[in-house]
Amino acid sequence: MKLSDGVEWAIHCALLLAALPPEGTLSGRALAAFHGVPESYLLKHLKVLAAEGILQSVTGPRGGYRLARRPDEVSLLDIVDAVEGREPAFRCTEIRRRGPCAEGKGAYPRPCGINTAMLRAEAAYRQALARETLNQIGESFLAAADKKRLARMQDWIGQNMRMPRS
Amino acid sequence: MKLSDGVEWAIHCALLLAALPPEGTLSGRALAAFHGVPESYLLKHLKVLAAEGILQSVTGPRGGYRLARRPDEVSLLDIVDAVEGREPAFRCTEIRRRGPCAEGKGAYPRPCGINTAMLRAEAAYRQALARETLNQIGESFLAAADKKRLARMQDWIGQNMRMPRS
Repeated sequence: MKLSDGVEWAIHCALLLAALPPEGTLSGRALAAFHGVPESYLLKHLKVLAAEGILQSVTGPRGGYRLARRPDEVSLLDIVDAVEGREPAFRCTEIRRRGPCAEGKGAYPRPCGINTAMLRAEAAYRQALARETLNQIGESFLAAADKKRLARMQDWIGQNMRMPRS
Repeated sequence: MKLSDGVEWAIHCALLLAALPPEGTLSGRALAAFHGVPESYLLKHLKVLAAEGILQSVTGPRGGYRLARRPDEVSLLDIVDAVEGREPAFRCTEIRRRGPCAEGKGAYPRPCGINTAMLRAEAAYRQALARETLNQIGESFLAAADKKRLARMQDWIGQNMRMPRS
């Protein structure tokens, strides 16, 4: 079981965007350059994040991406669901209905207990992901980050951020 | 993110083996037939489950597979780990160390906060999987199962189970 690289990229992008002032945006190109990842592949994920209401895509030459919600309103679950989709990791193929002891269709009024148990565990995972917000992760980062590193990042943001005309 | 079909098959097989008397075994062929899955592919998973100490492989013409531990000592985590491996679903590729603001190697004394948060959520998933035992799932099944269906399964087990000579 593996989450795609897009999950890591998307969370890093969202976290960087959480550091911008409210109206500021960063282009897909700038986000790709900052993270050293391929722009074309990253753009696909950014579009999905925008379609899912996590990012806002501001059009025009001064446009780019910004968070569509406050950082404390964006959880890791939101981002994982956007990139990976909401289908469970465990996909019951109903093998209980096969083989020599299989019954007719109406004989399975309850879901398979194995599926139920697996999904119960996934629910715990999803709840835990939902508790992790960009805000918390950003605060932990700021609390521990090297001051010089922070200053360099602020410089980079200052050079690359766009402010759409109001 | 998707767990392989092997996880479903392995849990079903382990659960069926949990219904046998202590010394009884079922062959890989019988387990494959009962679940309507390809024997060759299932055998690979059964071997892994044996290598991981979940099943015991009894050799010889009257041999087969049986649980290596009591059903209350086999959790869904044991089986998922055996089939899928123990690598985290989230694989941090350290993209924080790329791009124009990257620092030298020594500049990252702490793990990436995003990785930490993702693994914290995975720990909750693993804890939840560890709480689900074959015993519990089997008891839930027995409590709700149709009596005729149970009788047919018991018949099938009676016809296919092997008892190694002691």
